[in-house]
Amino acid sequence: MGAPDGKCTIAVDAMGSDLGPTEFVRGLIYAIEDLELDCNFTLVGKGRLLERLLEVRRPAVDPARIQVHHASEVVSMQDKPSQALRKKKDSSMARAIELLRDGKADAVVSCGNTGALMAGGILRMRPLDGVDRPALGIIVPSKGKPFVLIDVGANPESTALNLMHNAVMGANYAKAALGCENPRVGLLTIGTEEGKGNSLVNASHGYLQAIKGKVVDYIGPIEGFQLFDGDVDVVVCDGFVGNIVLKSSEAIFEFIGGTMKEELVRNPKRKLGAALAKSAFRDMKTRLSPNQHAGAPLLGLKGNILKSHGSSNYIAIANALRIAAEVVKHDMIDSICTDINQANDLI
Amino acid sequence: MGAPDGKCTIAVDAMGSDLGPTEFVRGLIYAIEDLELDCNFTLVGKGRLLERLLEVRRPAVDPARIQVHHASEVVSMQDKPSQALRKKKDSSMARAIELLRDGKADAVVSCGNTGALMAGGILRMRPLDGVDRPALGIIVPSKGKPFVLIDVGANPESTALNLMHNAVMGANYAKAALGCENPRVGLLTIGTEEGKGNSLVNASHGYLQAIKGKVVDYIGPIEGFQLFDGDVDVVVCDGFVGNIVLKSSEAIFEFIGGTMKEELVRNPKRKLGAALAKSAFRDMKTRLSPNQHAGAPLLGLKGNILKSHGSSNYIAIANALRIAAEVVKHDMIDSICTDINQANDLI
Repeated sequence: MGAPDGKCTIAVDAMGSDLGPTEFVRGLIYAIEDLELDCNFTLVGKGRLLERLLEVRRPAVDPARIQVHHASEVVSMQDKPSQALRKKKDSSMARAIELLRDGKADAVVSCGNTGALMAGGILRMRPLDGVDRPALGIIVPSKGKPFVLIDVGANPESTALNLMHNAVMGANYAKAALGCENPRVGLLTIGTEEGKGNSLVNASHGYLQAIKGKVVDYIGPIEGFQLFDGDVDVVVCDGFVGNIVLKSSEAIFEFIGGTMKEELVRNPKRKLGAALAKSAFRDMKTRLSPNQHAGAPLLGLKGNILKSHGSSNYIAIANALRIAAEVVKHDMIDSICTDINQANDLI
Repeated sequence: MGAPDGKCTIAVDAMGSDLGPTEFVRGLIYAIEDLELDCNFTLVGKGRLLERLLEVRRPAVDPARIQVHHASEVVSMQDKPSQALRKKKDSSMARAIELLRDGKADAVVSCGNTGALMAGGILRMRPLDGVDRPALGIIVPSKGKPFVLIDVGANPESTALNLMHNAVMGANYAKAALGCENPRVGLLTIGTEEGKGNSLVNASHGYLQAIKGKVVDYIGPIEGFQLFDGDVDVVVCDGFVGNIVLKSSEAIFEFIGGTMKEELVRNPKRKLGAALAKSAFRDMKTRLSPNQHAGAPLLGLKGNILKSHGSSNYIAIANALRIAAEVVKHDMIDSICTDINQANDLI
């Protein structure tokens, strides 16, 4: 699918972000002008507001590349995920997903209520044949290259089959978003010797052994302490564990940063040192920031739905749009379909 | 129980540490001289070697306070946990646990093979009445005061009842080791709105509600991003999740430290800044180091068995001994017994 000019179209739920639609429009312009994204965009949300924001920004881009699609309602963070899209039929999120479902967009990007986006996405786009439960994949920085952590919260009650599917979907996401040709896949567990871990992980290990080298390059179980070593491209876990790992990692990052700041202002000598080394802290923050890899796809659906963090700034939003464009360009969903079928046949 | 002088006796498996028995003896002397620990110690391991190490260190302490108990074998990290103590009956770990079982020690501290210590501990000391599965509790630094994370790996396949017991045992550990009078207990989950999380956590939440305010001060579910906020004294989870959180937190700490070092040496200005602020980095490391809170007890057994990290340095070892003395002083096991019975009656 695609627009008449052959470019892909990304539908953007412009209303759900914590920073408001202004940041979303800024991100869009940054994606076009700085990241040179060659896509068309449909901004979904309060029409007049979005038109005005676009005018103010006066982008030096072909106006035909940015459409505005009016939606009168906004899904809030307080809306109950299972009911949000049913109750708010004219919400920007619901309308953006409709554009995807009706073939008027190739991907949706939203910063809104994760639960509502997942529930709505699953209901309206349906899981791919052979996939029981979709999973949320996210790109995480590490010592070497970044890796995909999957699932970070879509499915907190996984089966071994779900985890095998996570491996297949995560590997395809790593190919599309990270450019890995043959992603190395690890299974997150505790203690890598046989019999350790828990029954879910041990059963999943069996499935992954069965598809190893045929569908994915499964390198075996890995432990928490190996997470940031950069040895794997995909880390597979269930949504409960993945969500806790992701959120506690963000928390520890903030905690360390806060402690460092406290220590660096304790006396004038330290303050001077900190001032001289200021650019090092800035560069470190950039390297470890999730902004470069914002945009987590809900994998395993018949459409590309990507979630960006609620507090995403314009750089994060632009990168989420970039990743959306990548997964469309790589026909990721087609590859996932092929691989899922092959994997299901092997076990 | 206790020695004739009324002091408690700690049996020390001096052989299992990565840094060797020298570090253990150094830690012991540090505990006595610097931390002023008023206990007796029985060093278990290669007798002649330990005697020689003690002589070299020539502590200015009453020699009667340090006994050496010979054991000819050492459990290695490669030994299979379930068989280690059965196959190596004269290992320092087996002998130390025997001293505890036979009433000749009030606590055991070991840096050795965790799996072997847990398996041996459970087999020889037996779980407390009313406790199905012991749990490993560990003290973790946070923005405010440190908190107890329980379980970090003893029981990777928990039931809701296990998690309720973890809450009770963790609260008693927080009282003994952190001096919390009324520890605030949180249940680690994803999404704190009702119905989120997984079935294990939701069932555990039910049990914790039933004992809330009667046995423990349960404040409800908490998410990964709240872990280091310092709002809770005890974080309850199953051993699979806890182990991954603990190890990935250590990994991210190292990863951030490594990235910071790389950035700080990129140019002469940064290097100068880093040199001026050097003491800030050192103090930060001390604040976040696990050394102050080494010594994780295997809770729920009829005896105090504490595990210290395999790579513990002398400060960590001394602190593990200090924590062992605290749990003995607080009669922690008696309190756990009382609370477990009360909790089991309430559900």
